[in-house]
Amino acid sequence: MKFLVLHGPNLNLLGRREPEVYGSVTLDEINTSLEQLAAELGCSVAFMQSNSEGALIDAIQDCAGRYDGIVINPAAYTHTSVAIRDALAAVGIPFVEVHLSNIHRREEFRQRSLTAALAVGQICGFGRDSYLLGLRALFSYGKKS
Amino acid sequence: MKFLVLHGPNLNLLGRREPEVYGSVTLDEINTSLEQLAAELGCSVAFMQSNSEGALIDAIQDCAGRYDGIVINPAAYTHTSVAIRDALAAVGIPFVEVHLSNIHRREEFRQRSLTAALAVGQICGFGRDSYLLGLRALFSYGKKS
Amino acid sequence: MKFLVLHGPNLNLLGRREPEVYGSVTLDEINTSLEQLAAELGCSVAFMQSNSEGALIDAIQDCAGRYDGIVINPAAYTHTSVAIRDALAAVGIPFVEVHLSNIHRREEFRQRSLTAALAVGQICGFGRDSYLLGLRALFSYGKKS
Amino acid sequence: MKFLVLHGPNLNLLGRREPEVYGSVTLDEINTSLEQLAAELGCSVAFMQSNSEGALIDAIQDCAGRYDGIVINPAAYTHTSVAIRDALAAVGIPFVEVHLSNIHRREEFRQRSLTAALAVGQICGFGRDSYLLGLRALFSYGKKS
Amino acid sequence: MKFLVLHGPNLNLLGRREPEVYGSVTLDEINTSLEQLAAELGCSVAFMQSNSEGALIDAIQDCAGRYDGIVINPAAYTHTSVAIRDALAAVGIPFVEVHLSNIHRREEFRQRSLTAALAVGQICGFGRDSYLLGLRALFSYGKKS
Amino acid sequence: MKFLVLHGPNLNLLGRREPEVYGSVTLDEINTSLEQLAAELGCSVAFMQSNSEGALIDAIQDCAGRYDGIVINPAAYTHTSVAIRDALAAVGIPFVEVHLSNIHRREEFRQRSLTAALAVGQICGFGRDSYLLGLRALFSYGKKS
Amino acid sequence: MKFLVLHGPNLNLLGRREPEVYGSVTLDEINTSLEQLAAELGCSVAFMQSNSEGALIDAIQDCAGRYDGIVINPAAYTHTSVAIRDALAAVGIPFVEVHLSNIHRREEFRQRSLTAALAVGQICGFGRDSYLLGLRALFSYGKKS
Amino acid sequence: MKFLVLHGPNLNLLGRREPEVYGSVTLDEINTSLEQLAAELGCSVAFMQSNSEGALIDAIQDCAGRYDGIVINPAAYTHTSVAIRDALAAVGIPFVEVHLSNIHRREEFRQRSLTAALAVGQICGFGRDSYLLGLRALFSYGKKS
Amino acid sequence: MKFLVLHGPNLNLLGRREPEVYGSVTLDEINTSLEQLAAELGCSVAFMQSNSEGALIDAIQDCAGRYDGIVINPAAYTHTSVAIRDALAAVGIPFVEVHLSNIHRREEFRQRSLTAALAVGQICGFGRDSYLLGLRALFSYGKKS
Amino acid sequence: MKFLVLHGPNLNLLGRREPEVYGSVTLDEINTSLEQLAAELGCSVAFMQSNSEGALIDAIQDCAGRYDGIVINPAAYTHTSVAIRDALAAVGIPFVEVHLSNIHRREEFRQRSLTAALAVGQICGFGRDSYLLGLRALFSYGKKS
Amino acid sequence: MKFLVLHGPNLNLLGRREPEVYGSVTLDEINTSLEQLAAELGCSVAFMQSNSEGALIDAIQDCAGRYDGIVINPAAYTHTSVAIRDALAAVGIPFVEVHLSNIHRREEFRQRSLTAALAVGQICGFGRDSYLLGLRALFSYGKKS
Amino acid sequence: MKFLVLHGPNLNLLGRREPEVYGSVTLDEINTSLEQLAAELGCSVAFMQSNSEGALIDAIQDCAGRYDGIVINPAAYTHTSVAIRDALAAVGIPFVEVHLSNIHRREEFRQRSLTAALAVGQICGFGRDSYLLGLRALFSYGKKS
Repeated sequence: MKFLVLHGPNLNLLGRREPEVYGSVTLDEINTSLEQLAAELGCSVAFMQSNSEGALIDAIQDCAGRYDGIVINPAAYTHTSVAIRDALAAVGIPFVEVHLSNIHRREEFRQRSLTAALAVGQICGFGRDSYLLGLRALFSYGKKS
Repeated sequence: MKFLVLHGPNLNLLGRREPEVYGSVTLDEINTSLEQLAAELGCSVAFMQSNSEGALIDAIQDCAGRYDGIVINPAAYTHTSVAIRDALAAVGIPFVEVHLSNIHRREEFRQRSLTAALAVGQICGFGRDSYLLGLRALFSYGKKS
Repeated sequence: MKFLVLHGPNLNLLGRREPEVYGSVTLDEINTSLEQLAAELGCSVAFMQSNSEGALIDAIQDCAGRYDGIVINPAAYTHTSVAIRDALAAVGIPFVEVHLSNIHRREEFRQRSLTAALAVGQICGFGRDSYLLGLRALFSYGKKS
Repeated sequence: MKFLVLHGPNLNLLGRREPEVYGSVTLDEINTSLEQLAAELGCSVAFMQSNSEGALIDAIQDCAGRYDGIVINPAAYTHTSVAIRDALAAVGIPFVEVHLSNIHRREEFRQRSLTAALAVGQICGFGRDSYLLGLRALFSYGKKS
Repeated sequence: MKFLVLHGPNLNLLGRREPEVYGSVTLDEINTSLEQLAAELGCSVAFMQSNSEGALIDAIQDCAGRYDGIVINPAAYTHTSVAIRDALAAVGIPFVEVHLSNIHRREEFRQRSLTAALAVGQICGFGRDSYLLGLRALFSYGKKS
Repeated sequence: MKFLVLHGPNLNLLGRREPEVYGSVTLDEINTSLEQLAAELGCSVAFMQSNSEGALIDAIQDCAGRYDGIVINPAAYTHTSVAIRDALAAVGIPFVEVHLSNIHRREEFRQRSLTAALAVGQICGFGRDSYLLGLRALFSYGKKS
Repeated sequence: MKFLVLHGPNLNLLGRREPEVYGSVTLDEINTSLEQLAAELGCSVAFMQSNSEGALIDAIQDCAGRYDGIVINPAAYTHTSVAIRDALAAVGIPFVEVHLSNIHRREEFRQRSLTAALAVGQICGFGRDSYLLGLRALFSYGKKS
Repeated sequence: MKFLVLHGPNLNLLGRREPEVYGSVTLDEINTSLEQLAAELGCSVAFMQSNSEGALIDAIQDCAGRYDGIVINPAAYTHTSVAIRDALAAVGIPFVEVHLSNIHRREEFRQRSLTAALAVGQICGFGRDSYLLGLRALFSYGKKS
Repeated sequence: MKFLVLHGPNLNLLGRREPEVYGSVTLDEINTSLEQLAAELGCSVAFMQSNSEGALIDAIQDCAGRYDGIVINPAAYTHTSVAIRDALAAVGIPFVEVHLSNIHRREEFRQRSLTAALAVGQICGFGRDSYLLGLRALFSYGKKS
Repeated sequence: MKFLVLHGPNLNLLGRREPEVYGSVTLDEINTSLEQLAAELGCSVAFMQSNSEGALIDAIQDCAGRYDGIVINPAAYTHTSVAIRDALAAVGIPFVEVHLSNIHRREEFRQRSLTAALAVGQICGFGRDSYLLGLRALFSYGKKS
Repeated sequence: MKFLVLHGPNLNLLGRREPEVYGSVTLDEINTSLEQLAAELGCSVAFMQSNSEGALIDAIQDCAGRYDGIVINPAAYTHTSVAIRDALAAVGIPFVEVHLSNIHRREEFRQRSLTAALAVGQICGFGRDSYLLGLRALFSYGKKS
Repeated sequence: MKFLVLHGPNLNLLGRREPEVYGSVTLDEINTSLEQLAAELGCSVAFMQSNSEGALIDAIQDCAGRYDGIVINPAAYTHTSVAIRDALAAVGIPFVEVHLSNIHRREEFRQRSLTAALAVGQICGFGRDSYLLGLRALFSYGKKS
């Protein structure tokens, strides 16, 4: 099984950006942890990050026939992008939505997710662990399907 | 008279994407039908599709002095893009908004259009025919102006 | 194929009523244009106008078994009549909803349609052409069914 | 005791109209059942159906001094007619509001009743039995008054 | 100058209907008072009452070229009829909206008027005097135009 | 057929509690009337009342395989208990929701029912008769199934 | 009978202030017209204007035992002053609320009146005539009491 | 490290209750899986289920000094219980909120969680895996603290 | 005069629970202070605390004929329990609602009280003194009645 | 310790104003009671009443360095005055907000307080006792600080 | 060119009032800075501060014919005073609205400005510089007109 | 000190686009004015414009360590882009938000800014001067830090 891990806007700044909210781990460190877990589980992961809504949509469309699932942290686009929602619906690949922070503690506009209703499930609040748990959940879901 | 037909995000997937909602016609087939109708009416059409909001804005800005009107299906950006609305207002070219599906039957957030108030008119629910009727409407509007 | 064109309240005043909003074409001229297009397409059309909600409901109920579709401009009842919605749902004949003006540019209470969700599709903003495009759309829909 | 059973718009189509929502019983069959129950209880019933809001108001006004109560299914007018509400308040005759379907399961705009606050009570969801239970309730109410 | 006084639904019951809200004066007495005032002012008045929205719309449409203004008490249709609003806008005759009771003291749904924004002005709360003041206001308005 | 009649919080005070709202009948008298009607119809009824949400949920869960239906007056929990709604959904036994008073005349927070959408139907406003009509409705529903 | 005419904030600027909204009549001219009408009716009027909410409250409180009624145009305080509302309720003298312009045509925040629910009635839209009609209404009301 | 797994109302019915929503796994099977995972991770788990809000509050209060964290599925009380929220805030023990189903796909009233803002994080949509991931997340969180 | 002091959910944790919000005083200390004040005033007090909504309702019902008034801190149930409201209305004993913290400074959902409208009055923000002032207020109210 | 008791608009009418809402006690009698209680507690009180928002703000600003606390009944300004709120925040003196009537029973616009969030606490519903309890609460608060 | 600088309620306390929000600069220091800038630009400035809404309205009305523009910080009245808005509209002098703090970061009720829509523009968030920038902006605007 | 001036979507059309709203100045002319002012103040400015949200986010991220502040006109993205907000929060560089037009006079959806709460301050309504004032404000802010 092959999975794509998709990081939304501003996540390239992790570790430098508001560490009191997002922690001090960098995106590279998260990706390395995910590769280790993938090896342990017996699957493979690829990574992509973009600040551009259009580039993220292109990446989602390219998943068809190439990946068995997506772990996506849509970051700010979680709350505003109907187009990413439509892309996820269009390719029809199972995906898990993850967030570093507990979005229920934050501004009200961060508590609405346009994509969560289409996901297998959503995980938020555990920092780097949100990604690792998301990969586990997707792997487990893939084995059952 | 020359018209631009502008397709918004995810419309490149037509035919593959959720056929129970959007039908099995592909974007190429729609474009071919539009070319045939344009020939019949005595006008010409060009086409452009992008998943990127910025690229769509660039395309709208480039219409000034080159096209007599736009048939636009802003897809998901219909509901979220004030920037596309502003681009359409800025160039001041008449445009018709079309949608494949009947947006009044869908999720509530798809029933608000940021661009429709600036359009000559809006057509939705007729699949490929929404585009063909849109071209007819724009051609007819252009002849009267 | 036979179609009924149903005009809602105050449309008998067309041409005299607020021409800056609705244009100077009369209802008779619209009906004549529709007859010409019907002849061209190879179908027939009948017409009916009423200011009374009850009379419009009676007319919709009488369509069962007599018409293959309805082009309806419910005018003001678009926004207030659950009873017309129920009549259209009850007879189950395909219908297209049309509006002379672009309802998205007008008062907020005119932007909600109680009937559009049941229609094949909706066309607004093209004056007389809204009706002609509506008849084309319905004819095309009927041929596919 | 004499009661009027008042059927609102589109109820004349019962049995033909959306049977998955409203069942296959016709209005005549409902009326026959009501006559049988009335005979059993020892009261009489009359019937009236109209698609016209004005005609229903006229009928309600005419009840004064002629009937001891009304079983009314205002159908679509339940949700939109302040005028029927005012007529019921004006004549001051006790009435019971009935609905064939469980309105709490349907569209949100069907869950607001303009007339229920003036009724003795409301019964919904039991198909033909909603009427029969409504007649029983009104008869029982009349005996106590 | 000639004026039409238009009475909406249930006003035929005045004097019998909820006298604690609407008072004990009958519609005939109001009309007689209006005729006396019209004679005093030097103008003429005609009267019409209907429970039917369609009939009221027909009456408004018929005013064009026959009356110099309308005193209208749309009663319950004040709050629900976009179609009466459209008829008043279409004929373009000045009108004054009157209400017997003080609508600001009543249910919230009675505090929104769909027609008031098109009126010369609105008068409410004075019982029979609301009509008399309305006729004075309309007469005064007509003399200035 | 065996039915459970479930009385929610504060209904043990009936007859003593706010008689101008709930009447002077006691819960025992209602239960006795229900037993008489059950005998007449040819079915049996059991009764249970509790002020505790958890105890009511336990009672609903225990119905599975023991009763053919429930007549429930959830009283105050009607408006606040998602847990009772879930219990009713979980056991999947047909139930009828009844209320002594006409909830449409009362405070706005009493007009939303969390359970009604899952019920066969809802009856309110007839005092003790609400229960008797509810038992009739459930019995009739059971015979048809 | 003696009446106080109370003019709220900015009405001292009448004639100079936004004449397209409020007309070219000055406050002195309105007061003179009111004195003439009062003489004609057989009553007396006094006048007071202030830009200060507190001064208006003082004036209202001073009416007790000195005036038989108030014609008040609370102007901007109509929409914001609970304190003026309380003062009017406290003195318990009948008052009529008047507005020069048709407030139903203006900004939404001008369509809510905090004082209207306590008034005998409200008159708006007739410019200077709003005051004259208001005095007539109050005089007529006073004679009946 | 010792953790309490707290199951809210109706979860005792798992496997029997609406399997299309909640799956066919029973609560015992979930608990067994959790024990296996706990053994693997090197921690211990205890379990408690109740339909009573008060009993759940008691259980949360008793955790102080006895457990290092709570995995809680508050089920229906997620959306209505301020008291459970207060209990969790009062004991101040870290907890993870889990849900079997993807609450973002369900009724709107299930999308608001009163407790999530106080949790370390929230996991939903993975059936039994939601619990297992929750235990992993809590264990990992405990090791870092 | 005898009064019951009723403490709602989680108040048994006082002193240990979020001292920055609720202070360091324990429930026993509050009760002791109340007993001292009662002795000073010449009345007696009893106490009861429960985390269970049903148990609190039972306690309120049992007050009839046994106590002259209730000082109640419904804590979290203040904002969610229609059933406690109904119990207080049913027994009809005067009660005063108290809160330790100033609820106007806290989360929005804590600013709505379902019970306050039925209380003699409400006191919040003074910690232990809220209870003492509440007892004084109730004692004073009782002497006047 | 010295305290200022500040009475807002219309409170000078106490005893004469709507006695069914506010009771028959006059402002002088309240002040006398407060002086007696102050003597008993061992502190002093001064009084001020104004109908003017600006005068009340001036009075609050003048408290700095002269008083140890304020007992304020902002009356109607409770619900509308951001400026009084800002004055109270600016001087930073502890204050207690009191109301004669139970504001939770009154119009919805009286249930929002702009100042309560800044107060030590709020007391409402006990008539004259609201002031006396407020002075006790403030005195007790002052002794602890 | 002559300008009036108008300071709203509580601004006389600047420097003493909540310095963490408003800074430590006093109103006199701001006025001195404005005089220096005015001298530099070649215009003159006058100053006025009041806590009274009425006094501010009087001041605005007095500007007609005496000043070329107003720099206004309406402070708390920004959010509540329709009367100040009307005064500004009535005199028709260009004005610039300034705020010391960034109102977009503060309570929600401070984010609505009743006057901003009538201003040339609005400047907020720069402390004393908001005034200086406002004077520059108004001076520049005046030179262009 | 070095500043970046960031222009959002459609601002490249300035001078051609809706001059009645945005004026006739071009973006180059604005940039030239800013360079002149920067020289005068003793700082340097760079410029960037893009129609793409992603490109703007990239530009903001690149500011870290290279610029001392940002003058940003996010144009249409002001109202829709949480991602630009997050980028500004992430880099943590002080920025000033400017708008050519007075956004408080325009459509309601243009009155909400997602970025303003993070800015030092906001300036709108002064055309080209909004930028110049913004640069002054930022320069002044930088000198104080």
